[in-house]
Amino acid sequence: MKSANIVPVQHLVTSEQRWRINGHRGGILWLTGLSASGKSTLALELERRLVLVERRAYVLDGDSIRGGLSSDLGFCAADRNENIRRVGEVAALFARAGIICITAFISPFHADRDRVRAAAPGLFHEIWVKADLEVCERRDPKGLYVKARDGEIPDFTGISSPYEEPKSPELIIETNRMSIEDCVDRLVTYAEETFSLRG
Amino acid sequence: MKSANIVPVQHLVTSEQRWRINGHRGGILWLTGLSASGKSTLALELERRLVLVERRAYVLDGDSIRGGLSSDLGFCAADRNENIRRVGEVAALFARAGIICITAFISPFHADRDRVRAAAPGLFHEIWVKADLEVCERRDPKGLYVKARDGEIPDFTGISSPYEEPKSPELIIETNRMSIEDCVDRLVTYAEETFSLRG
Repeated sequence: MKSANIVPVQHLVTSEQRWRINGHRGGILWLTGLSASGKSTLALELERRLVLVERRAYVLDGDSIRGGLSSDLGFCAADRNENIRRVGEVAALFARAGIICITAFISPFHADRDRVRAAAPGLFHEIWVKADLEVCERRDPKGLYVKARDGEIPDFTGISSPYEEPKSPELIIETNRMSIEDCVDRLVTYAEETFSLRG
Repeated sequence: MKSANIVPVQHLVTSEQRWRINGHRGGILWLTGLSASGKSTLALELERRLVLVERRAYVLDGDSIRGGLSSDLGFCAADRNENIRRVGEVAALFARAGIICITAFISPFHADRDRVRAAAPGLFHEIWVKADLEVCERRDPKGLYVKARDGEIPDFTGISSPYEEPKSPELIIETNRMSIEDCVDRLVTYAEETFSLRG
């Protein structure tokens, strides 16, 4: 921490006040999994379904963040870690603001995910979007696995860089065993239980 | 932009849907001004007042951001610019999520403020929290001006580094001519007009 002469800000609004006007709590639904496992598809559909029932939900996606907040970062290991760190900090701010923040990032390393959990105590829900590598590679909607196999993309998760499987995620969604609709239903149910004011 | 192999995310929720369930639009109220001009005080009180009337408002403050998202940055010119860039990107995400994001940063340079405006088209409202340097230096609640005069803090805005006054801010709040209460009333009125769904 390089910052000096810093006094922490003291909001004059409690989390409970924010929850009350929204009718639900805020928090982070952190989707992790291989490329093409279905994270972004599920995240966007979950956001749509939650907004339909008047929940404040917002998706942070690798694509949108890479074009803005992390546009200065590349794809070396250090930059990837820094990208996940920033997303975690932003997601924590959203959660504290009372929003259900849904993130969709491969985030392959325990250390990075655990750091986000630590930065957002009580707000972080790790959701493993699980699909076999062969299935993801067959889907390959962006042609990234082909490029990775050809060596055009270095350090590609699952091919030339490891995916560290979550040890005790709050939820596992198996996208090669369930339909997208069933996966989204499961996520909506989890969100409604988790962020209910009655809980 | 170092990012490659990026496809922009497409939310399945419109801004209008988010506004409708909130009862108001999202946007950025960007407070700029000298240290001790009153930015944080006004921002936190404005947040409190807006939440009381069921607006979703959230303050981003130099102090909270410096302890999280920008904890890797110091206070040299390049790091200060990067800090403001990141805050601008986060504020734009909040605004797109339907939140009234209130930021309180000295943000002394035209170029930095204009870059945030460009990153959040139609969402950015520049509010100059204006107070004479002598008044700010007399207030000096954190003792920073004393340290700056003693040379303990280099490049301190107003003392050893310039404050570039906004050329055409959306609003000017003169904190040495009006009471805090009147300043906050003016800000609440501006926010209510600006983010009304009837506008």
